[in-house]
Amino acid sequence: MDFKDIIQDIYKNVKAMEDCGALPTYIPDLAEVDPNKFGVHITTMDCQNYGVGDCYQKFSIQSIAKVLSLILAYKLLGAKIWERVDVEPSGNAFNSLLQLEVEKGIPRNPFINAGALVIADILLSELKNPKAEFLAFVRDISNNEDINYSSQIAASEKEVGFRNIALCNFIKSLGNIKNNPADVLDLYFDICSLEMHCKDLSELFLFLANNGKKITDKTPILTETQSKRINALMQTCGFYDESGEFAFRVGLPGKSGVGGGIIAIYPDKYAIAVWSPKLNKKGNSYKGMKFLEEFTSVTNLSIF
Amino acid sequence: MDFKDIIQDIYKNVKAMEDCGALPTYIPDLAEVDPNKFGVHITTMDCQNYGVGDCYQKFSIQSIAKVLSLILAYKLLGAKIWERVDVEPSGNAFNSLLQLEVEKGIPRNPFINAGALVIADILLSELKNPKAEFLAFVRDISNNEDINYSSQIAASEKEVGFRNIALCNFIKSLGNIKNNPADVLDLYFDICSLEMHCKDLSELFLFLANNGKKITDKTPILTETQSKRINALMQTCGFYDESGEFAFRVGLPGKSGVGGGIIAIYPDKYAIAVWSPKLNKKGNSYKGMKFLEEFTSVTNLSIF
Amino acid sequence: MDFKDIIQDIYKNVKAMEDCGALPTYIPDLAEVDPNKFGVHITTMDCQNYGVGDCYQKFSIQSIAKVLSLILAYKLLGAKIWERVDVEPSGNAFNSLLQLEVEKGIPRNPFINAGALVIADILLSELKNPKAEFLAFVRDISNNEDINYSSQIAASEKEVGFRNIALCNFIKSLGNIKNNPADVLDLYFDICSLEMHCKDLSELFLFLANNGKKITDKTPILTETQSKRINALMQTCGFYDESGEFAFRVGLPGKSGVGGGIIAIYPDKYAIAVWSPKLNKKGNSYKGMKFLEEFTSVTNLSIF
Amino acid sequence: MDFKDIIQDIYKNVKAMEDCGALPTYIPDLAEVDPNKFGVHITTMDCQNYGVGDCYQKFSIQSIAKVLSLILAYKLLGAKIWERVDVEPSGNAFNSLLQLEVEKGIPRNPFINAGALVIADILLSELKNPKAEFLAFVRDISNNEDINYSSQIAASEKEVGFRNIALCNFIKSLGNIKNNPADVLDLYFDICSLEMHCKDLSELFLFLANNGKKITDKTPILTETQSKRINALMQTCGFYDESGEFAFRVGLPGKSGVGGGIIAIYPDKYAIAVWSPKLNKKGNSYKGMKFLEEFTSVTNLSIF
Repeated sequence: MDFKDIIQDIYKNVKAMEDCGALPTYIPDLAEVDPNKFGVHITTMDCQNYGVGDCYQKFSIQSIAKVLSLILAYKLLGAKIWERVDVEPSGNAFNSLLQLEVEKGIPRNPFINAGALVIADILLSELKNPKAEFLAFVRDISNNEDINYSSQIAASEKEVGFRNIALCNFIKSLGNIKNNPADVLDLYFDICSLEMHCKDLSELFLFLANNGKKITDKTPILTETQSKRINALMQTCGFYDESGEFAFRVGLPGKSGVGGGIIAIYPDKYAIAVWSPKLNKKGNSYKGMKFLEEFTSVTNLSIF
Repeated sequence: MDFKDIIQDIYKNVKAMEDCGALPTYIPDLAEVDPNKFGVHITTMDCQNYGVGDCYQKFSIQSIAKVLSLILAYKLLGAKIWERVDVEPSGNAFNSLLQLEVEKGIPRNPFINAGALVIADILLSELKNPKAEFLAFVRDISNNEDINYSSQIAASEKEVGFRNIALCNFIKSLGNIKNNPADVLDLYFDICSLEMHCKDLSELFLFLANNGKKITDKTPILTETQSKRINALMQTCGFYDESGEFAFRVGLPGKSGVGGGIIAIYPDKYAIAVWSPKLNKKGNSYKGMKFLEEFTSVTNLSIF
Repeated sequence: MDFKDIIQDIYKNVKAMEDCGALPTYIPDLAEVDPNKFGVHITTMDCQNYGVGDCYQKFSIQSIAKVLSLILAYKLLGAKIWERVDVEPSGNAFNSLLQLEVEKGIPRNPFINAGALVIADILLSELKNPKAEFLAFVRDISNNEDINYSSQIAASEKEVGFRNIALCNFIKSLGNIKNNPADVLDLYFDICSLEMHCKDLSELFLFLANNGKKITDKTPILTETQSKRINALMQTCGFYDESGEFAFRVGLPGKSGVGGGIIAIYPDKYAIAVWSPKLNKKGNSYKGMKFLEEFTSVTNLSIF
Repeated sequence: MDFKDIIQDIYKNVKAMEDCGALPTYIPDLAEVDPNKFGVHITTMDCQNYGVGDCYQKFSIQSIAKVLSLILAYKLLGAKIWERVDVEPSGNAFNSLLQLEVEKGIPRNPFINAGALVIADILLSELKNPKAEFLAFVRDISNNEDINYSSQIAASEKEVGFRNIALCNFIKSLGNIKNNPADVLDLYFDICSLEMHCKDLSELFLFLANNGKKITDKTPILTETQSKRINALMQTCGFYDESGEFAFRVGLPGKSGVGGGIIAIYPDKYAIAVWSPKLNKKGNSYKGMKFLEEFTSVTNLSIF
């Protein structure tokens, strides 16, 4: 299937729609992004590589980076990481602290903040130079030396990150953070500050459509089973409290970030990245969701 | 792919394993089932129809029936049913009543008891003769007049169903049950009492692998989009608080019941039913989960 | 201290105030009471017996009756009742079902609905003719044959009592209701339907100011210790989620009902009853609270 | 009434009892206190001043200090402090974080940690030199220059205070902490580190039995109404999730600390302090509770 015309058409439609989303206000620097940005990029197993709109402009990938830190931790520790974090959807945000208490500090999954903090704690324990080594890992997967942290975004989040400080210290008090909470938070905010554009993202994540192997030289990043499991996790837990809705409407494993980005994977076929900064009420890109829903409807390609 | 040998091999392996599950104790009649029963049956789009073990012995399908009542309600009301029930995983069982209160009587999804009660309420409002019409609907999908309710199981559950009575009256107090709670419960317990064997189940559910159309005469039960959405829902919500784990280990949409049955669907390929009465701690068939995990590993067929 | 003039003055003041409360809407028959009714009656250990306003008009005492059913159960079973119900304030209403689940069906205290249902269950187990014997007990304490249930109010509540049906069946599922939930609810609604006027109430409850003994003939209803404990319970748990506020502003043990009545006790001195049907947001009589706050301020008589 | 013999007798009895409590383990320095210490001291309005056992040995008063910081904030801001903290019992500890979220950062009362952190935040905003001025205030009430913070205890708590750090940052994220969380925590830990012996405590708190006025020179610390309200708050909220039980068994307003101290007040009569370091499951001194229960039984003096 040639995706170029389909993407152009849907892009035009969704571009013209009213955007019912809103910029997130709680991170000062994210609140200043141009709300009209809109980009899409697809990279396929059969070597299509096509983008439209603002697909070459970098943005803060935020929670999308949680997939990458999880993958590195999974690679380092294997199945042992599931002793520290579960693989279940979290239900609503509302009871997250309650659940942590009941479940003795084991976060429901690695994509909620609690889980990503535990993953950051694992990286801190396992790596000598976590910040540099994580960046090198990400650059290596995508053969792209142009990917970087944003120290400005990281600093902006640290300043107002009281909820995350609370969360990290709470898990520490429950015994599931091993390092100093301040160090864990520091690494966590850096990880979330990664900046990429849609093309970077779709190229980077294509290995998850390829059973965990890099497209270029077939180097395994993850085993085939591990790769399927990461996809399954994105399917059930990738969109905060809208994961069911995303499976329902879009039908692909994926992950969103509060910066307005979404990555979605069709196993054995493609990875597609969308960026539009205004978020719906559940915190996912309003136009990004719309685009992907239409895209899987028109192409009739969902995994279900 | 020819599944016969694969199924035989895995069946033998799993049959020989120690069964770490336990019979459910809270429904008297289910507690008396022979715990060593174990059956598997697959029905494929390319006309394979193969079973092993106790695959022709009927059992109580329990919550698997919630997929069927949902499908009938979806067929009758279309997308309007999503105003009465959401499509999100529920997080843990623990906070279900709390969530209902916070979310004003809208259950998280149609597969938790709260959601299935609302679906039963919809059927009660929409059908003249709900009990008979629902049964006719199920028989029609599978061209199988041999499917029936078990009045004994339904009676057994009614006697001890205090938690469900509580739930139904609680939702009524929140305004999302329109009929008399006693009538809703009556229909609900009947629906859950349906009895089938593995062959019935895999044949019945094959239409969800066929984009919503019956295999025999291509009659649409659901539209293609509706069918995909039911599959997506089973993927994210089909296994109580183990839905993430099932996606993670098995990687297929499916639904389990407290009677020890599991149905799983591989879109465009097959439906497979497993039955083994002893349940793991999350309430899903212990050997059923084991069998399906091994089956998707060996065949290398998961949707992710 | 002569209370007559003080009561007249405060009554006049509070009568003239704007009433910021509202009639409860969820029990049809309570919603039809004349909202401007306002009565006060005091009965003292030194034989003052004085009332103003609508102090001789009967009203539905509702939750105030929970003190009386508790007292009868306490008398019958002694300290063993505390194995079935706790003596702690409940925190907010919001999490009542959650707490029940965590605390395995043991209600936080006998004045929340859950606790009063367990007390009704105890009476059902301990008495041959619970409805008649409870009424006889209440009449005997106050030497007042004129006290009765209202079958109309009881029927009105049963019709819309889905929340209480839910609660009772939920506790049954947790094992702390021994009888049939329908029978427990039936007795519960009857108990809550008791009708009295302010004079009845202040005379009836005076024995709690007298260390548990009837004033007239010194017959002990409760032991001195038991009587103090009932007062302590009213202090910490008598006003739903406003018990702290009532202790804070009024400083007396007491109990309110959704019918707009409040009874308050000053140990060794008096019992005072107030009735005004419009309720504040926490479900307590708006003018009743105002009157008592002013009364304890002016008389400078609080227990603190 | 002459309390000397009564106190001696009860002290002897309770001293001989098995101590079913345990030292708290989470604050290293408290875990090293001699568990057999046991002291009692009473100070009465009619000038009795009597103690037994280890009544002259200082200990860490911990949460008892929350009454003192509340009193200073109340004195400084008056009724405005109730916009920042409520006066209701909290229900169980279990749902404290949940409640904070639902109630938008307004702690249930000033004696739970969340509330005491908000009070510390108020002192930080209102005082130039909060640490010194608070100490001066405490010393002034009791005319006792010998009262001091313990920098060792404060440091010991800071090291392991992850739960309190979490709590403070959580409230900050909800908007009800105005200063830097680290500064608030610093003051909070200092306040809790105050050291006194039983005699210090009973003399210091006697003004709450005297309608808010110092005994010596009648200087008002609080107005009469304020003083009654502090007593009411101690009655309903002073013993964590055992406040109902304490009202029920002891029947006096009071406050306990995790250091094993309890202060209790009988309005118009006396203040009594008890110290025994081993705590019951709810976190209150095991022998302290026993002593006070027996003391109010024998003297037949409870406020109910």
